[in-house]
Amino acid sequence: REEIEADGLCDDLGAVRDQDIARAMAGLSTDGMSRVVDVLPDDRRAAVFGFLEPRAQYALVERLGETRARELLEALRPDNLTALLEHLEPEEGEAVVRRLSPHRVQQALRLLGYPPESAGRLMTPEFIALRPEWTLAYALEHVQQHAGRSETIDTLYVTDAHGRLLGWTGLRKLVLGAPQSTVESLMDSDPVHAVVGDDREEVARQIQHYDLTALPVVDEGGVLLGMVTIDDVMDVVEEEATEDIHKLGGLGARQVSLRGASILDLFKKRIGWLLLLVFLAIFAAGAVSAFEETLEAAVVLSFFLPLIIGSGGNAGSQGATMMVRALATGDVGPKDWLKLWVRELGVASALGLTMGAAAWGIGLFYGGTMLANVVFLSMIAVVVFGSMVGMLMPFLLTRFNLDPATASAPLITSIADIGGILIYFGIATAWIGVTGASPAG
Amino acid sequence: REEIEADGLCDDLGAVRDQDIARAMAGLSTDGMSRVVDVLPDDRRAAVFGFLEPRAQYALVERLGETRARELLEALRPDNLTALLEHLEPEEGEAVVRRLSPHRVQQALRLLGYPPESAGRLMTPEFIALRPEWTLAYALEHVQQHAGRSETIDTLYVTDAHGRLLGWTGLRKLVLGAPQSTVESLMDSDPVHAVVGDDREEVARQIQHYDLTALPVVDEGGVLLGMVTIDDVMDVVEEEATEDIHKLGGLGARQVSLRGASILDLFKKRIGWLLLLVFLAIFAAGAVSAFEETLEAAVVLSFFLPLIIGSGGNAGSQGATMMVRALATGDVGPKDWLKLWVRELGVASALGLTMGAAAWGIGLFYGGTMLANVVFLSMIAVVVFGSMVGMLMPFLLTRFNLDPATASAPLITSIADIGGILIYFGIATAWIGVTGASPAG
Repeated sequence: REEIEADGLCDDLGAVRDQDIARAMAGLSTDGMSRVVDVLPDDRRAAVFGFLEPRAQYALVERLGETRARELLEALRPDNLTALLEHLEPEEGEAVVRRLSPHRVQQALRLLGYPPESAGRLMTPEFIALRPEWTLAYALEHVQQHAGRSETIDTLYVTDAHGRLLGWTGLRKLVLGAPQSTVESLMDSDPVHAVVGDDREEVARQIQHYDLTALPVVDEGGVLLGMVTIDDVMDVVEEEATEDIHKLGGLGARQVSLRGASILDLFKKRIGWLLLLVFLAIFAAGAVSAFEETLEAAVVLSFFLPLIIGSGGNAGSQGATMMVRALATGDVGPKDWLKLWVRELGVASALGLTMGAAAWGIGLFYGGTMLANVVFLSMIAVVVFGSMVGMLMPFLLTRFNLDPATASAPLITSIADIGGILIYFGIATAWIGVTGASPAG
Repeated sequence: REEIEADGLCDDLGAVRDQDIARAMAGLSTDGMSRVVDVLPDDRRAAVFGFLEPRAQYALVERLGETRARELLEALRPDNLTALLEHLEPEEGEAVVRRLSPHRVQQALRLLGYPPESAGRLMTPEFIALRPEWTLAYALEHVQQHAGRSETIDTLYVTDAHGRLLGWTGLRKLVLGAPQSTVESLMDSDPVHAVVGDDREEVARQIQHYDLTALPVVDEGGVLLGMVTIDDVMDVVEEEATEDIHKLGGLGARQVSLRGASILDLFKKRIGWLLLLVFLAIFAAGAVSAFEETLEAAVVLSFFLPLIIGSGGNAGSQGATMMVRALATGDVGPKDWLKLWVRELGVASALGLTMGAAAWGIGLFYGGTMLANVVFLSMIAVVVFGSMVGMLMPFLLTRFNLDPATASAPLITSIADIGGILIYFGIATAWIGVTGASPAG
């Protein structure tokens, strides 16, 4: 069946785009992929290879003939080569590096020397640099001669004799300007730029905020080292959002493609948090056991346990979710916590009152006025408690330089559970006045 | 204090970028903003205004003198004007439209005629179209003359005499090609494009998948209507991620900036789901009450209720989160559900066994072997049940054309609660053999 698929892929390649061939290949075995590579026209092979996922690229390199593997690796754009090497185990990386020309090895090692998730890892070191004193006519000629050396020529940078970034301009300005005017006269000086060690999230934020299509990357001395293009940044924005979503859902940070993941991969991504939450639940069990006598006197209280603790957890999850996302997009900053806390107190009180009123009716139905009152009061207290935990936890985590998204819905729910149990049975014990019930269990 | 801020803003504007002025203005009152607009140099006023949020733009239009308001609105790019009108109440929109020239009114009404969140709402109708038979030299001249009409000239489209899209090319190809060759000889025919009613998420996915910086938008007949540029799509990717994150956290879909939201805004965004979950919890209360006699016979069972139902909810939240995100990024498709279900069954069993083993120890500590065994078995069953619900719910929702992200952590948790209670007390009733306990309560 796969053979047919591989052959079908190659039937009418003219109408299929490189990216779509790469996507279709992702579903094939290494054998199938190598058969597709073999029948691809010479001028499209490198492009398709460049769009494959790192794992698939590596598998192909190991599978293909030596000459072809070298050819494909050599044609890989520098930023894609960095991405490939980043994703490989050390001994696999060696197998790739062994096949590169000395110049590419040097380039790859330099790029991999920058910290993970930094601007340096994301950039391509190939760009076209103009000099400020050149005329536009001369600059245009220079661009025409060196266009092959750069990923894009829509954005062009201007440097001094030492390679220091002076400004940027666009091909469009060269074309629209008077041929005899100088580059300096139409460049934007003081361009937005990143330093090579900057976090890639910061790079994405700059490109987004300033509506750029490329961002220059410089070293500490201001020397231009490369550029990050917006298409790479789009992937970063998506990956970072996935990371946050996974963390909020109580999943480990390890990046795993759901499509290709094994049962073991998924087990590892999930078990850590789940066991930690089981451990937290010991305290919940302890909290319930502390009110054993209250419970024995009024088993009806346990009917409402899921409602009460669940509501605290739900309100808390909402609060944490809003805060984490707003911090990630820069909608609010860590310094805003006090203002947000005061407002959250207002919102939570209103939510608690509304939910308490609804729960009061349910309580009345099951156990009469007294139970209804206990449920009403507990609901308000629990929703406020849960919301406070959910809202403050992300800020606390940033304070300790931890990722606010660690305040996941499951974590907030587990903490709200323990608080909710204490609040609910505490109020019940006091109100119903089950004397003889000792909080020490 | 604000007056000082407004003045401070204007002290040294040369060094501050338009986007940063707009961001700083967001913190000011309408008075403060209008004072900044007044002192801005004439050539930067429109640019800064274009970067403001729609609400701030509207407030300014109402506050500024009539001439200046008209000037700023007229200079607004068509896609930004669409965004502004989209965000206003009907009577506010009228106040804006009243100030536009007839040509702009017509254009705005046409764009707003496309469905919300469609390619048409996102596109700018200003582009440069070339003819296939033109020489590059002639085309370049045409571009130079009409550059002001388009948001970008890096990407250029090729149409026939009826305006139908034939292909695309870039300024870079015009510059690098031989001046006497034709546009047709170097254009990409059969270009990736969107139809005007396509969802904006689909537009974002195409731009991302094909590494484009702009996507042409055509009508059903293939006539080129406009283009969507990548900087607008970056914002879409971020907004859609926020929407998914909020839904997964059990928040309403209403877009609210946390920074500017009132207590009422936030209450409205949160109360809907919370009340629905309270309603669901009635079933949880009913489920517990069905086992009243079992509970009366062994109150110790209630100690483990939070642990058991919480674990099902946590495993389910994880499963739902992974599925929702993988569906959103296209990592998996709705057709993959069976394969994923089988794998989830394997993962959930492994998770349940591990967590059950941990919970067994806790059970032993509180109540002996028999309780430990009940907790162990329940844990496995509940984790598998929760994971199945969490994993399948997003697929079920897509089947009914609903957003998979509706399968929020709080919703999955609430459903897992009810199932968990029935499983746990069911197993307990059977194993401990509390005879006389009637499941009908």
